[in-house]
Amino acid sequence: MAIYNAPLRDMSFLLNDVLQIDKYANLPGFADATPDLISAILEEGAKIAQEVLQPLNQVGDKEGCHLIDGEVKTPTGFKGAYDTFVQGGWSGLTAEPEYGGQGLPNVVGVVVNEMVASANMAFGMYPGLTGTAYSAILIHGSDAQKQTYLSKMISGQWSGTMNLTEPHCGTDLGLMRTKAEPQDDGSYKISGTKIFVSAGEHDLTENIIHLVLARIPGGPDGVKGISLFIVPKFLINDDGSLAPRNGVSCGSLEEKMGIHGNSTCVLNYDQATGYLLGAEHKGMRAMFTMMNKARLGVGLQGLSQSEVSYQNAAAYANERLQGRSISGTKFPDKPADPIIVHPDIRRMLMDQRAFNEGARALLYWTALHGDIALKSPDESEKIKSDDYMDLLTPLIKAYFTDKGFAHAVNAQQVLGGHGYIRESGMEQFVRDARITMIYEGANGIQALDLVGRKLASDSGRAILAFLEELGDFVKQHEGDRELAVFVGAVTLGKGYLEDAMGWLMEHGLKNPDDAGAASTDFLHLFGLVSLAYMWALMAKAAQDKAGGDDPFYSNKLKTARYFVERVFPDAASHLAKLKAGADSMMALDAEAF
Amino acid sequence: MAIYNAPLRDMSFLLNDVLQIDKYANLPGFADATPDLISAILEEGAKIAQEVLQPLNQVGDKEGCHLIDGEVKTPTGFKGAYDTFVQGGWSGLTAEPEYGGQGLPNVVGVVVNEMVASANMAFGMYPGLTGTAYSAILIHGSDAQKQTYLSKMISGQWSGTMNLTEPHCGTDLGLMRTKAEPQDDGSYKISGTKIFVSAGEHDLTENIIHLVLARIPGGPDGVKGISLFIVPKFLINDDGSLAPRNGVSCGSLEEKMGIHGNSTCVLNYDQATGYLLGAEHKGMRAMFTMMNKARLGVGLQGLSQSEVSYQNAAAYANERLQGRSISGTKFPDKPADPIIVHPDIRRMLMDQRAFNEGARALLYWTALHGDIALKSPDESEKIKSDDYMDLLTPLIKAYFTDKGFAHAVNAQQVLGGHGYIRESGMEQFVRDARITMIYEGANGIQALDLVGRKLASDSGRAILAFLEELGDFVKQHEGDRELAVFVGAVTLGKGYLEDAMGWLMEHGLKNPDDAGAASTDFLHLFGLVSLAYMWALMAKAAQDKAGGDDPFYSNKLKTARYFVERVFPDAASHLAKLKAGADSMMALDAEAF
Repeated sequence: MAIYNAPLRDMSFLLNDVLQIDKYANLPGFADATPDLISAILEEGAKIAQEVLQPLNQVGDKEGCHLIDGEVKTPTGFKGAYDTFVQGGWSGLTAEPEYGGQGLPNVVGVVVNEMVASANMAFGMYPGLTGTAYSAILIHGSDAQKQTYLSKMISGQWSGTMNLTEPHCGTDLGLMRTKAEPQDDGSYKISGTKIFVSAGEHDLTENIIHLVLARIPGGPDGVKGISLFIVPKFLINDDGSLAPRNGVSCGSLEEKMGIHGNSTCVLNYDQATGYLLGAEHKGMRAMFTMMNKARLGVGLQGLSQSEVSYQNAAAYANERLQGRSISGTKFPDKPADPIIVHPDIRRMLMDQRAFNEGARALLYWTALHGDIALKSPDESEKIKSDDYMDLLTPLIKAYFTDKGFAHAVNAQQVLGGHGYIRESGMEQFVRDARITMIYEGANGIQALDLVGRKLASDSGRAILAFLEELGDFVKQHEGDRELAVFVGAVTLGKGYLEDAMGWLMEHGLKNPDDAGAASTDFLHLFGLVSLAYMWALMAKAAQDKAGGDDPFYSNKLKTARYFVERVFPDAASHLAKLKAGADSMMALDAEAF
Repeated sequence: MAIYNAPLRDMSFLLNDVLQIDKYANLPGFADATPDLISAILEEGAKIAQEVLQPLNQVGDKEGCHLIDGEVKTPTGFKGAYDTFVQGGWSGLTAEPEYGGQGLPNVVGVVVNEMVASANMAFGMYPGLTGTAYSAILIHGSDAQKQTYLSKMISGQWSGTMNLTEPHCGTDLGLMRTKAEPQDDGSYKISGTKIFVSAGEHDLTENIIHLVLARIPGGPDGVKGISLFIVPKFLINDDGSLAPRNGVSCGSLEEKMGIHGNSTCVLNYDQATGYLLGAEHKGMRAMFTMMNKARLGVGLQGLSQSEVSYQNAAAYANERLQGRSISGTKFPDKPADPIIVHPDIRRMLMDQRAFNEGARALLYWTALHGDIALKSPDESEKIKSDDYMDLLTPLIKAYFTDKGFAHAVNAQQVLGGHGYIRESGMEQFVRDARITMIYEGANGIQALDLVGRKLASDSGRAILAFLEELGDFVKQHEGDRELAVFVGAVTLGKGYLEDAMGWLMEHGLKNPDDAGAASTDFLHLFGLVSLAYMWALMAKAAQDKAGGDDPFYSNKLKTARYFVERVFPDAASHLAKLKAGADSMMALDAEAF
């Protein structure tokens, strides 16, 4: 049986000591988020994650979802857990007070979301997808649509989904075939088949609000002719009560590698009534509102599986007695030393820890920029934070999930053969984490988005601001001997990034394949440099207190050093690879494969 | 539905052009292995792999094995396939002619084994484990034991197993509790519980020959008091016929992440009759005979899953139409370009290809050294080849499986969401490949074996011979402009290895934790340098023919260049990491995790 304990100490350290969110009391929602309130929220969030959601994680994996007479039954306990979850107000933590939400900062919401995803990722997807659908309606919906849907989605009475993929079209949405025929009453009739719809049908809520991409006949070809529609599972009467079922049904559930607790549906739309969300043919814009939120959520999932698998590996490494330390027996009274004495076991645990704590910092740091972008009265601050959000979304999605998966594999490795057995729960973390590299845009697409779009947009304003921030940090701390190793890594990383960008500018425009060939290595390089900066910020925050009795701060500095010495060196090899260009990558004819 | 086509062309290229096995006609078994015979064997092997075993791979995964009234039922079709397999003589291909084997070189056997493992890894483990048990009896058994067991194991009438692990003891066999009490007739009564016994009970053969590690009461503590026993499932009468069942039974089957087609058993020994194999208390020696053979077999499995998953990813990448090439539309008549036009898809495929072909070369090269070690009349050649086998066994086991798994994950990624669905078969490759990093000694143990034992043994004779061989190659080809890039990588790699070994000698003896902390990075560094050497050998063999009409040779050179430019750069970061030492890795107290 796997365990999970929310890393509350690390979470508070980030919010209070590193991000110092009390400085943002001028922003709406932040003033209410006093340290006491936040602390109470995190403790309650930890309770529900640990006591309600985590015990259902393996149950959900084992049982999966079942399609019976068109209805999907979620695993035992999921419905009860969902009711507890929404009754506790967790589904509306950061939502608009106008529609019944609690209006708390996103940076607080993201902490709770991490706990939920670590405890039970498949469960967390149900409210998670409601949140993304909520955002799209909030931003692109008419007043009437907001009135109709938002409060019931915030309360968790209704849930939401995203319908993008079709059997022949995933990444390339321009190939989409689902049709939306305009009706006299202003509504549309939606027909087509959508696949890979997470939480597409289930028994947790009384209604499901599907957001569906479709093509209005006569519109432009390709992605420019795609619109987004609200298609409720049950139609809604004017008084808000539920009318008969709409023409959407679950054709089948996908049998998949993991996230068995979440229902991945084939949804058939047969003349279903839909309502245009936003403007005609502007569906991609609205879709990206959802998508960007979802991508950050997926990055968070990558971290969440790395964190929970790490905790289980660390516990096992402290308990399992096997062999003796090569530098001399550590526990002579035991039949063998616990395996945590072995350097290679430490290597795996420290790799995970250095990633988890660094990635958590970057995630919360980015979420805070999300709050600033949304709420700051200072226009230039707003723009910078918004730029950061755009720049970091593909990074967090892809880097966190590539690494989150790799570290779940590492954690499983710590348990040896026992990690391969289902009962341990370790292999479930690996299987669940695996989807995060794929969905909401496969990681290769994220890399291309980063290199092909985000780096260049507004003449590179976002990445230049980030590099300037790194430069400012270096200038400010270059005399600090205790921080020298961390400042050194930031300096080196900044140089690598500049080198890589110079190479991209020189080659990527002439030969776009050079940019494509460089994209994943650039993304990983950028990930390492961003984490180096986070580790420097954390080291600085820990530095003053590291001399005290509390080992938390000195451990933070030790882990920071491990990151620089043992994780960061990969940055140089990513740089070398990306500068090799596309030639050898593209040299073979397609038939040769 | 997944596909598999044995890479016969690449296999012949390695045997004939790179290894030039016709030069070894002086060794027993090699003279018979004419190019025509080998070609016929490989074609027949491909047939059985592709037509008999591969179609059962997904069936085996889906159905798994079932324990019914103490008997294990293998998946539908496995028994028929096994009969076809042994009737074709495939179980005795490289076995001693004295006991009915065909006496072919190991280097030929390994090619067939690769096909079998690619087609159906879980199936391949049944004859594979028989082969390892066969080796132990061949080398350590008495004449009577050889007479009793070998011919029936070679014919496949009986199968074999290895019984090492107990619930509380895996890596640390010194903790073993299974007891072997001497009887008056010279036999022993074996009692205890063994877990993770692959192919421990099944319906494929009429008898199963368990090789069991156990402790004779009164012997030395720890691993020095362990002996190896032959414990047949059915006792054997003097005339070779089967007597009643022995006191060994399958307590349960493990539910595991993958290799569902193979029965992973808990075996309970209750006063089972066993026969000492080799000397009392010398079980570890005999165990290592099996283990080393098994470790090479596991390395081969890593390659096999990378190869088969690559083939499926490449086929999908050529078929799936999605998006347009960023360097300009390639197929204007199609609704979209096949995804193989996208550099990041190429990156994943080329990474796999560069590994597969390089690893295959190293595996066959090592297998040929195994033949030379066994059969050469030249004592110094024999010693060198034997040294190489010792040195390369942990490398092949761990490097091939770390990478084999990573590449199966890459291949799955090429299919996007479809790779996460069970039907595609891609996620099975990932789940099956995952065990290879764990069993027969987790990869961390291999790294420790390499750095702590194999590098140092006989004053470093093996690694020094290897470095000398690299140096000779460089000297011989340093003027060759067409090979310059490959000779350059070998030169660089040799320097890295020497640098790493210098660091290890300086630090590892003073602080063994420094050696432990360096072990996995050293192993990966060594893997990259070994593959760089293989790629140089292949480039040299392809060079002369690359100008002709056959693209095979020019593709080989292109892939070689990709390896140097896009895979090899990781070597430098492994070197940097290993030289960081153990300090930051070991700095945290165990309780801090």
